[in-house]
Amino acid sequence: MPVDATMEKCGVTSVVDEAVEIKTEDKTVKFASGEIVSYNKLVIATGSTPIRPKWCAGADLENVFVIPKDRQYLDMMSEKLNGMKNIVVIGAGFIGVELSDELNKRGMNVSLVEKLPHILNLAFDPEIGEKIEELVVSRGVKVIKANGIKQILGETKVEAIELESGEKISADAVVLSMGYRPNTELAQKAGIPIDENSFIIVDEYMRSDVKDVFAVGDCAQKRDFVTRKKVTTMLASTACAEARVAGMNLFNLNVVKTFSGTIAVYSTALDDYGYGTAGITEQIAIKEGIEIVTGVFEGVNRHPGNLPGAHKQIVKLIAAKHSGIIIGGEVVGGPEAGELTNVIGLAIQNRMSVNSLLTMQIGTHPCLTASPAAYPLIKAAELVAKKLV
Amino acid sequence: MPVDATMEKCGVTSVVDEAVEIKTEDKTVKFASGEIVSYNKLVIATGSTPIRPKWCAGADLENVFVIPKDRQYLDMMSEKLNGMKNIVVIGAGFIGVELSDELNKRGMNVSLVEKLPHILNLAFDPEIGEKIEELVVSRGVKVIKANGIKQILGETKVEAIELESGEKISADAVVLSMGYRPNTELAQKAGIPIDENSFIIVDEYMRSDVKDVFAVGDCAQKRDFVTRKKVTTMLASTACAEARVAGMNLFNLNVVKTFSGTIAVYSTALDDYGYGTAGITEQIAIKEGIEIVTGVFEGVNRHPGNLPGAHKQIVKLIAAKHSGIIIGGEVVGGPEAGELTNVIGLAIQNRMSVNSLLTMQIGTHPCLTASPAAYPLIKAAELVAKKLV
Repeated sequence: MPVDATMEKCGVTSVVDEAVEIKTEDKTVKFASGEIVSYNKLVIATGSTPIRPKWCAGADLENVFVIPKDRQYLDMMSEKLNGMKNIVVIGAGFIGVELSDELNKRGMNVSLVEKLPHILNLAFDPEIGEKIEELVVSRGVKVIKANGIKQILGETKVEAIELESGEKISADAVVLSMGYRPNTELAQKAGIPIDENSFIIVDEYMRSDVKDVFAVGDCAQKRDFVTRKKVTTMLASTACAEARVAGMNLFNLNVVKTFSGTIAVYSTALDDYGYGTAGITEQIAIKEGIEIVTGVFEGVNRHPGNLPGAHKQIVKLIAAKHSGIIIGGEVVGGPEAGELTNVIGLAIQNRMSVNSLLTMQIGTHPCLTASPAAYPLIKAAELVAKKLV
Repeated sequence: MPVDATMEKCGVTSVVDEAVEIKTEDKTVKFASGEIVSYNKLVIATGSTPIRPKWCAGADLENVFVIPKDRQYLDMMSEKLNGMKNIVVIGAGFIGVELSDELNKRGMNVSLVEKLPHILNLAFDPEIGEKIEELVVSRGVKVIKANGIKQILGETKVEAIELESGEKISADAVVLSMGYRPNTELAQKAGIPIDENSFIIVDEYMRSDVKDVFAVGDCAQKRDFVTRKKVTTMLASTACAEARVAGMNLFNLNVVKTFSGTIAVYSTALDDYGYGTAGITEQIAIKEGIEIVTGVFEGVNRHPGNLPGAHKQIVKLIAAKHSGIIIGGEVVGGPEAGELTNVIGLAIQNRMSVNSLLTMQIGTHPCLTASPAAYPLIKAAELVAKKLV
């Protein structure tokens, strides 16, 4: 039986089996093997499954793929794609965009289809998303926006797709990256309350509504840090933060949670470009009726800008108008973009104001960061501050 | 007259001349050209000069160089070094270490001499500094530690140096990177109070003790964020933060300063390795009598760790024992180390506790950051938290 060596060392026994029934009154879990184990505390971390929409005819044809977190499946898919020419990727979130770029690198003719007006539309505001789109397109991916899929055509195998606009694109394979649904059937059968989006209802310590049952990760309900509304964010990093909170507070509330709500912090990479986003976008803020002020500054991620590996670095900040508190940020840059996004994420979590950012002390180095005199994060804060006066 | 185009656009008139006299009663500054300008507010930003110690015989010989922020001088030095073989660099702070590596890359035989027991001894604790030293040595630089310079030998040109230990090293050139002294003679002559280390005394808004006179950057006094003692930190990024504070509060205290004291945040790069430090080291904390708890975690800066460009990533955290508040951090990694150090710097400035870090939400990406499940910053916080229980 395969076990995780690191976990084993920490005293964790791994059981590789399928849990088929939870009895919360008896505090037991039954496995497919028939084995029944009892628990003092139960943590449900059943993850999520890629959506293969029922309303879409042809979604079950051969060579229609999804992107689960399943190495075997992905290896199989990668092999089957060998030699194929025309690939359509449906859904231009992070996964769709990264996958399109990877397949394009393998010499395939990739069409990336997005129902919303822009790629990465939920993560980035249009003016930032467009920079990423320019790069994706310049690398050879065909981007089709504001146009959803209507159906997938073919006898047994995919032959083409039809868009909502009626346009048809011939395809050897279709990859659906249209989102994920939480795996909560097991919990639901056990009477553990789930919400209208099928997430297990949890409090800030990841406790479900049933005593001694916790849930973490993609299957657990999340609320946005800023808007306080339920969100469907599914990120490995969020899952890990939730797991830490649950683990530390499993038996007693040992570590009082200091940040409340989910702040989506994520980054992506294309070649040696990096992109990241933290908190909410301007678009979402406006939709939620939050009065905001924004600032965008375009600089360079090295100094001077003629150093090898130098890239444009753009930072956008979104602040609440009346308090000046930072509620979102977006970054375009090089490999430093991931951790720079974490700087913004931390500012949001600490409810820092634009003024705090202005007096913030940063470290800079020619080969690692933007210049201290034109550090885009602080320059963007300056632009916001000027509008707040 | 050369002017700075960006500043010009912002309405700033540049005058390239030498200020030779400040009269604070008349509120005037006299230039070497004879021109006298009057001011409403005066900001002194006269910087610092590399130390060429008087006690060291031979420090004025030909081919003994220092490292000023002066492009012309550095270009001249670089040219004179052409063809030279044996170079001794005195002082293994960031500048000495980076310079040694650059000269070594040019094929020179470089000896780096440090009086303290380790290179980068003030910025990193020994166990982290040693990792950097290993790299520097593996790249070909000869490191001599716990041994200062006694004198520089030669007739008119450098021929050798003699160490405190008596050992002699022949040298075609010597580079002194032994620190910098603030340029405050002009201020001192004008009766603007300076402290025992020759820094212009300023408050947290960078106001000197003389009305309407401010000072920022290397020439201005600094106090450590944690220890509250005067420190001699000289960093471009610190100078820029001070300049922002002074600029925003020149006429009224418009932007109340939210962080008080200087937190040294800096990073350095060797090849595609990055290193950074923020706040105070364990060594300094102990010296200052601060009871502390530390944690060191060694991980990888990409995930999985076999991705191209993957590097070891080590994070050390230093927390105050009774409050759990983070007061320092050190990072070894790849190009992300600069901004990761800024994440730690921001945590220190926000006086975050180890518990806050444990529940902190970060963003991760295979090509840009460590894994969410083994993110060294948070794993180091875990190690600290365990010791605090």
